[in-house]
Amino acid sequence: MKILVQKFGGSSVADLECMKKVRAKVLKAVEQGYKVVVVLSARAGQTNKLLEMAYQWSDEPHPAELDVLLATGEQESIALFSMLLNDAGVKARSMVGYQVPILTDNSYNSARIISIESDHFRQELEKYDVIVMAGFQGYSMENRITTLGRGGSDTSAVAIAAALGSCDCHIYTDVDGVYTTDPRMVPKATKIPKISYDEMLEMASMGAKVLQIRSVEFAKKYKVPVWVRSTFSDDEGTLVTQEDEFMMESVMVSGVAFDKDQVRITILGVPDKPGISAALFAPLADNEVLVDMIVQKASRDGITDMTYTVSHKDLKRALAITEKVCAQIGGQGVEYDEHVAKVSVIGVGMRNHSGVAAMAFAALHKANINILMISTSEIKISCLIHEDQLEKAVQTLHTTFGLDGE
Amino acid sequence: MKILVQKFGGSSVADLECMKKVRAKVLKAVEQGYKVVVVLSARAGQTNKLLEMAYQWSDEPHPAELDVLLATGEQESIALFSMLLNDAGVKARSMVGYQVPILTDNSYNSARIISIESDHFRQELEKYDVIVMAGFQGYSMENRITTLGRGGSDTSAVAIAAALGSCDCHIYTDVDGVYTTDPRMVPKATKIPKISYDEMLEMASMGAKVLQIRSVEFAKKYKVPVWVRSTFSDDEGTLVTQEDEFMMESVMVSGVAFDKDQVRITILGVPDKPGISAALFAPLADNEVLVDMIVQKASRDGITDMTYTVSHKDLKRALAITEKVCAQIGGQGVEYDEHVAKVSVIGVGMRNHSGVAAMAFAALHKANINILMISTSEIKISCLIHEDQLEKAVQTLHTTFGLDGE
Repeated sequence: MKILVQKFGGSSVADLECMKKVRAKVLKAVEQGYKVVVVLSARAGQTNKLLEMAYQWSDEPHPAELDVLLATGEQESIALFSMLLNDAGVKARSMVGYQVPILTDNSYNSARIISIESDHFRQELEKYDVIVMAGFQGYSMENRITTLGRGGSDTSAVAIAAALGSCDCHIYTDVDGVYTTDPRMVPKATKIPKISYDEMLEMASMGAKVLQIRSVEFAKKYKVPVWVRSTFSDDEGTLVTQEDEFMMESVMVSGVAFDKDQVRITILGVPDKPGISAALFAPLADNEVLVDMIVQKASRDGITDMTYTVSHKDLKRALAITEKVCAQIGGQGVEYDEHVAKVSVIGVGMRNHSGVAAMAFAALHKANINILMISTSEIKISCLIHEDQLEKAVQTLHTTFGLDGE
Repeated sequence: MKILVQKFGGSSVADLECMKKVRAKVLKAVEQGYKVVVVLSARAGQTNKLLEMAYQWSDEPHPAELDVLLATGEQESIALFSMLLNDAGVKARSMVGYQVPILTDNSYNSARIISIESDHFRQELEKYDVIVMAGFQGYSMENRITTLGRGGSDTSAVAIAAALGSCDCHIYTDVDGVYTTDPRMVPKATKIPKISYDEMLEMASMGAKVLQIRSVEFAKKYKVPVWVRSTFSDDEGTLVTQEDEFMMESVMVSGVAFDKDQVRITILGVPDKPGISAALFAPLADNEVLVDMIVQKASRDGITDMTYTVSHKDLKRALAITEKVCAQIGGQGVEYDEHVAKVSVIGVGMRNHSGVAAMAFAALHKANINILMISTSEIKISCLIHEDQLEKAVQTLHTTFGLDGE
């Protein structure tokens, strides 16, 4: 049994017209002899509409009941799409989360998949040409409906592909693949034909919102080959797969990512002694402030500055905590700067090529771009810069690492 | 554990305002020490909206997938209502069909309940103050979602009450009980405090659309006491229950029902020989024409007329079949009359009181109302009359049998 998983997002199933385009893609795969598992999101706008309703009803909707409400969005799309398939003479049936079944933990609104029982699913695939499965949802050990959090349908698709074993997973979206950077900022950005899971993870976490980050982690863990493609074209798209020698040796940098949602916060004049970092970052973590970059200045006369970045939505909470901590540890004051942005170069090639960081810093320097903070990983170099210089920085790095297309 | 089942229809949960009124009713029952099972319909208009969508997508929506779509309506209401209850500090959870679980046959769109597993449900009732259950839906042996057909939420409510054993079932609607006849036609109509299942069945099938007929059959079979009440008042409503001696002896007639949706069809000059009735009514049944009243005129010279009634929506099909049969059996022709209506007097008291039929005919005669057809059962007498005389007939019978209020 040749199985193919195809996932279509909310904009791909927004209305009847769109769904007919999706049906054409599915029919083609059926004609090629595949048993197809179609994973659908809620129709565009539907989840927001349901959320709005929930917050009309309640200031703080009960999390488990919110999931019961949200799950209706995908149930609607799979029912409508299965009707369309049956009308075209294709034997198709829909499945909601518990019918698959997709067992999750009970973290309502952002549940994690524990297991997928695939025996029954395989039997159903023998009987039907297509199973249309609700993305984004599962059920908990307590037999309650759960949802996987925003973008969870990507994870559903990769998870069912992993459970079925050795089948490709095509994620259809409104862009035709993963780009070297955002084409809206750099018109010379080009489509990446093949990218490793690790690179994709860095790209995704940097705001290249093509694939939900958890779905990439899942794909990496279970070695599921994922194709990112457009519903509205026939382009082959980008293959997200395991790192191979070819990838590591040929290209140093695969892409340039950026993130405008950064605020820099600094505690000035902190006595440099053990336990200072913990004193600050423990209460931040306890209050669910997500810290991104962290830099501690080289100490001079036993006094140092500590700088970190957070997203704008966490600024208020982060400042309150930081000011309290500053007073406790005898710091001189707290400053913050909202007008910063992060630019990153990403590539598994860095593992084998030295000097990537030096090249990046030199290029930014030559373009008169001041680097405020630096953080690096095995396959990524990130620089915090002034937000006014972001576009110039992205373009400079894109050119420097030979990513410009025609 | 004192259990109460409360069912609220679509107009009772139409919006936040209505749902808050419903919550007050539920909270009152919780305060009285009940564990409450709340059965909800989809919010008013929601099911029609979903049906409309289905028929935009498909000329003939796949029945099983239509149920997947329709089931979202109740899922939405139970999620929203459970949020409201939790906000009020009540421990409540929602349950869709498969969670209860309500097992049905696989007649999608009009499934019949096979069984309800109540052990797990009882355990959940120990843990929660209120379980908010989706009406109208279940799941089939093939683990697919089913719906029970229009008005199925009444049946869901009675069925869960039956499964839980010896608990009352309150059906809340927008009227405050069952009336002796339609108060819009007879202002002196009065609320019936207590009515038997059989009488209610006759009332329901006559177009007194307070309770779905299947729910009354269910209640009768499992002896569930059903209260029909208004969401918008504190009136006690009508108790639908087992016939008792008091009911049989005290009141001859409980109500006057009527049905405007009648067409009379006649085959003239039929040779009166065995097999003629079968020749006509078998093909009608095969084509799903629902025949109501049937009368065959006393034969004269081996020739007779056959008359029957159907609803307007079946007229065209019924006529086509009847004309074909008429030709086959050598009848003289087919006539029909759309301007007829049926009026019925209903009461278990008829079992013990003779002369009810004679009283009814005499009263109609005195009011110059011509009776076109008569049909009777143990607890009902129905007369077909000209539609212009319907109001007068209903009022006359209502007065004759002492049903007029102040």
